Amino acid sequence: MTDATWRGGAAAVATLTFDVDAETPILAAGGKYARHLMVMSHQAYGPDVGVPRILELLADLGVPATFFVPGWVAEQRPGLAATIVEQGHEVAHHSYSHRAPTSMNAVEERADFERALEVFDAQGLEIAGHRAALWEATQTTLDLVAAHGLTYDSSLMGDDKPYLLGSDDRPVVELPVHWSLDDWEQYAFLPSPQIGSVIESPRKVLEMWRAELDAMRHYRCLFNLCMHPFLTGRPSRLVALRELIEFAQSRGDVHFLRCRDLADAARADVTLKQRNPPQLRVDPAVYPD
Amino acid sequence: MTDATWRGGAAAVATLTFDVDAETPILAAGGKYARHLMVMSHQAYGPDVGVPRILELLADLGVPATFFVPGWVAEQRPGLAATIVEQGHEVAHHSYSHRAPTSMNAVEERADFERALEVFDAQGLEIAGHRAALWEATQTTLDLVAAHGLTYDSSLMGDDKPYLLGSDDRPVVELPVHWSLDDWEQYAFLPSPQIGSVIESPRKVLEMWRAELDAMRHYRCLFNLCMHPFLTGRPSRLVALRELIEFAQSRGDVHFLRCRDLADAARADVTLKQRNPPQLRVDPAVYPD
Amino acid sequence: MTDATWRGGAAAVATLTFDVDAETPILAAGGKYARHLMVMSHQAYGPDVGVPRILELLADLGVPATFFVPGWVAEQRPGLAATIVEQGHEVAHHSYSHRAPTSMNAVEERADFERALEVFDAQGLEIAGHRAALWEATQTTLDLVAAHGLTYDSSLMGDDKPYLLGSDDRPVVELPVHWSLDDWEQYAFLPSPQIGSVIESPRKVLEMWRAELDAMRHYRCLFNLCMHPFLTGRPSRLVALRELIEFAQSRGDVHFLRCRDLADAARADVTLKQRNPPQLRVDPAVYPD
Amino acid sequence: MTDATWRGGAAAVATLTFDVDAETPILAAGGKYARHLMVMSHQAYGPDVGVPRILELLADLGVPATFFVPGWVAEQRPGLAATIVEQGHEVAHHSYSHRAPTSMNAVEERADFERALEVFDAQGLEIAGHRAALWEATQTTLDLVAAHGLTYDSSLMGDDKPYLLGSDDRPVVELPVHWSLDDWEQYAFLPSPQIGSVIESPRKVLEMWRAELDAMRHYRCLFNLCMHPFLTGRPSRLVALRELIEFAQSRGDVHFLRCRDLADAARADVTLKQRNPPQLRVDPAVYPD
Repeated sequence: MTDATWRGGAAAVATLTFDVDAETPILAAGGKYARHLMVMSHQAYGPDVGVPRILELLADLGVPATFFVPGWVAEQRPGLAATIVEQGHEVAHHSYSHRAPTSMNAVEERADFERALEVFDAQGLEIAGHRAALWEATQTTLDLVAAHGLTYDSSLMGDDKPYLLGSDDRPVVELPVHWSLDDWEQYAFLPSPQIGSVIESPRKVLEMWRAELDAMRHYRCLFNLCMHPFLTGRPSRLVALRELIEFAQSRGDVHFLRCRDLADAARADVTLKQRNPPQLRVDPAVYPD
Repeated sequence: MTDATWRGGAAAVATLTFDVDAETPILAAGGKYARHLMVMSHQAYGPDVGVPRILELLADLGVPATFFVPGWVAEQRPGLAATIVEQGHEVAHHSYSHRAPTSMNAVEERADFERALEVFDAQGLEIAGHRAALWEATQTTLDLVAAHGLTYDSSLMGDDKPYLLGSDDRPVVELPVHWSLDDWEQYAFLPSPQIGSVIESPRKVLEMWRAELDAMRHYRCLFNLCMHPFLTGRPSRLVALRELIEFAQSRGDVHFLRCRDLADAARADVTLKQRNPPQLRVDPAVYPD
Repeated sequence: MTDATWRGGAAAVATLTFDVDAETPILAAGGKYARHLMVMSHQAYGPDVGVPRILELLADLGVPATFFVPGWVAEQRPGLAATIVEQGHEVAHHSYSHRAPTSMNAVEERADFERALEVFDAQGLEIAGHRAALWEATQTTLDLVAAHGLTYDSSLMGDDKPYLLGSDDRPVVELPVHWSLDDWEQYAFLPSPQIGSVIESPRKVLEMWRAELDAMRHYRCLFNLCMHPFLTGRPSRLVALRELIEFAQSRGDVHFLRCRDLADAARADVTLKQRNPPQLRVDPAVYPD
Repeated sequence: MTDATWRGGAAAVATLTFDVDAETPILAAGGKYARHLMVMSHQAYGPDVGVPRILELLADLGVPATFFVPGWVAEQRPGLAATIVEQGHEVAHHSYSHRAPTSMNAVEERADFERALEVFDAQGLEIAGHRAALWEATQTTLDLVAAHGLTYDSSLMGDDKPYLLGSDDRPVVELPVHWSLDDWEQYAFLPSPQIGSVIESPRKVLEMWRAELDAMRHYRCLFNLCMHPFLTGRPSRLVALRELIEFAQSRGDVHFLRCRDLADAARADVTLKQRNPPQLRVDPAVYPD
């Protein structure tokens, strides 16, 4: 069950990814929220309670994962990233401050991007890939990823299989995400700042993700699941995640990989598609800013 | 199982329609989004990944469909419309830019409408019908449809069976749509621009559409299903669509038609109802603008 | 199975009510929407397609209902109210224009209220009760209901059984409503004007209403169901309504009544509770406007 | 099945809590709503209809509960708090006016907090704990709780087990809450003021809470359920609550406690974690207010 493609002979590849945002998405909506203790505690639950439980679950089931960590979070909680790596998982770049690239100019974005690299470097972490805050990548983002020699990005939605971005001499592998494989849309609720307004049952989420995994096995896709420890770290959601992983394992043809390992396999796959952002001719007379 | 009515002896007629909007609804909300790569890739998935899979599914099940394509999309992706038509499906008019008619004056709307016709003409496409962007038709829209000799429109909600609009000498068949038979309300999620905020399970959608189809068989209706390749083109949603079509086929009394063929049958049906927009007496003292 | 209480020996009383709003809630949001043909047709579906089907369903199952009709709607569609009454159902007062009482001053509200009465009077309709537009009753509303000798109002939520409002010499029976027994929250979708954003499956709605009916049988309540022909008049929703009514009938201890008949029974019930709006002491220093 | 930890040998502890807000959340959004009779009656249903039914249900099942009551509500309905306490339940502090602490300065917050204590004192109620309005506690809130000698707060989300806040000489036990164990997100609907926009079926809520309880038994957590009589007091929601409690009782290893009794057990547990709000270094250059 191995071949030369990015799937290595599997029907589908599953990458379990956890965005360890902690307080950053809230503070990016306003530094004043630092004085809003409920909201802060709601976010701190992620690294403090959720991450240890997730690590225990992954160890128990024997599957690797990738943790996208903002530099600010790694800085505030010095032991966090090291603990994740020690258990065989990957830590990857998730900006410094979790401000959206689309809300910054190129100078600001570069500063934020590189400040995170400095934090990771100071903690001895070897970084192979990147996910934009809020997935809101710009061309600057992709240029920074390539310029710093990272092998992959995981922010776009142009396909449901890995694809290539950039020039032939310095290609970047895109590991695409999608709203329907993210726990935020299903579980996030917070009125101020408003980050979500519906709380779905883990049973619905499990059913939906199981169906998508089966359909992705049929279509030979990447099941790139994005989760957040402050959301999925809660008891019944973890139980649903356990059921999902066990379901995938029982299928017998799903490989679990860290993003960096998948990116390496994808780079070695000569059949991989190139899907650069389309060169659209946007006439401002038709579509004003 | 044939008769002289628009149903041709079926209990219900099903028109599978796909609005191939690609980037247009986003650009209509702001040309600046062209620099927002995640959003652009989210939309490009429709024509690039969704449409080929949909065509394969339709061929596999042997059912025809209608693809409503904005002129701008046909222009940017030259081979797209031709491929659809070559496989026996219909390409129909879905504006040039996907800006809502209700947001334009009559001159702007005419220019947009006719620019799309020019694109279709240049690509050798014979156009029989029209669907307004966002379904937001005005009287100008209906006048343009009639003036250009199209046989049908598919934007209004005055019934759940085909009906006649316009004058006796130049009637237009309306193939009505409805929110509950649209994948957008069930699947669309995008925070900026905000196009939707809930992601339902395909299982819920399948259950709801199956129930509506059965009820429409009872009431002898048009099951006019509106889908978007960037939404329904994703794996488990396609599997649900396959199940829906197979369910309809198993009923034995549901006909699948292209919109243009249904419109022809409807025009030949002398019992068809006329449902022009009601001439409401709206007193501005009671209902100010 | 009869007694002297408002329930007449039933475990629960069911009042099926239909608010035949047609275009009014949209025009109240802006007269300009009269030029928005899709929205107008979406609303016209209610009286034109929904009401005939609902009348047929009620006749088929042998249950009476109450139709709350704005005066403006009765005026625009002259035969509508008469047809409803001829089939043994009740037509009741639902304002003239469907503007919320809370958005008008007392003079405006009185004019709107009485203009509707004039329309009903001109059409020979005998009106016994009232429901405020958007349920947004004020003290002026209740005073108008009492002053014009109506026997009941159906806009408040202070209990789930009928109760008395007003003074002993001119009491009004309140037949309370609730968001959870309204089809609007489950089915309404329209982006502009924004009237709702989620479309639930009729199966969910049926399950929820069935559970509420059973619980109301236990607690001896009024199952006062509020529906809208433009929403519930659609095929699979009507099928769900049929199942709900048949379910209630199969229980054997649920009475279906017109609101006016229930109000009469309630007035004759000496045990009925008085629940005037509480005389709250609201200090503007604590709660500024 | 007892031990020296806060769980006393149970797999999970359940605290049933009811926030008897009545009109306060609405009036805090604008004193003008006092003239909006439907909204006022919607809220009055809580203490007038919901609370008696809830007390009956709790007595029937033999489980204790905690009722968080704003001082204003206790003042407007003099017998309410006493009735609750007489039946063996706890009444606790839920602010005076239900304005969010995060919306007040320290002087205003102290005045509101102490005014509630005066009301409770005048009614002879002994208060042991506090829950912030909207859970929006500030450091001032926690200082007031400690300064007034209360043993616990129940507003934060830093864990799903009780934890300690404050200094060693004056610790406060935090009994954490969470959005997913609150009936507001599932049931609340009101357009003006907008307090919620989705109405879920009690069946979904029951399924979700049952799964969370089972998962919390596995992870040894506090099942701290927050309900509102104006929401959960309605018939089928009460039936679902009854099923939930009976389910928990059938598990045999879930203890039901009043919050004050749990807080005492937690204070005696030397293994309890300290989780003071993290001392975040928030740089205003990165995160402006």
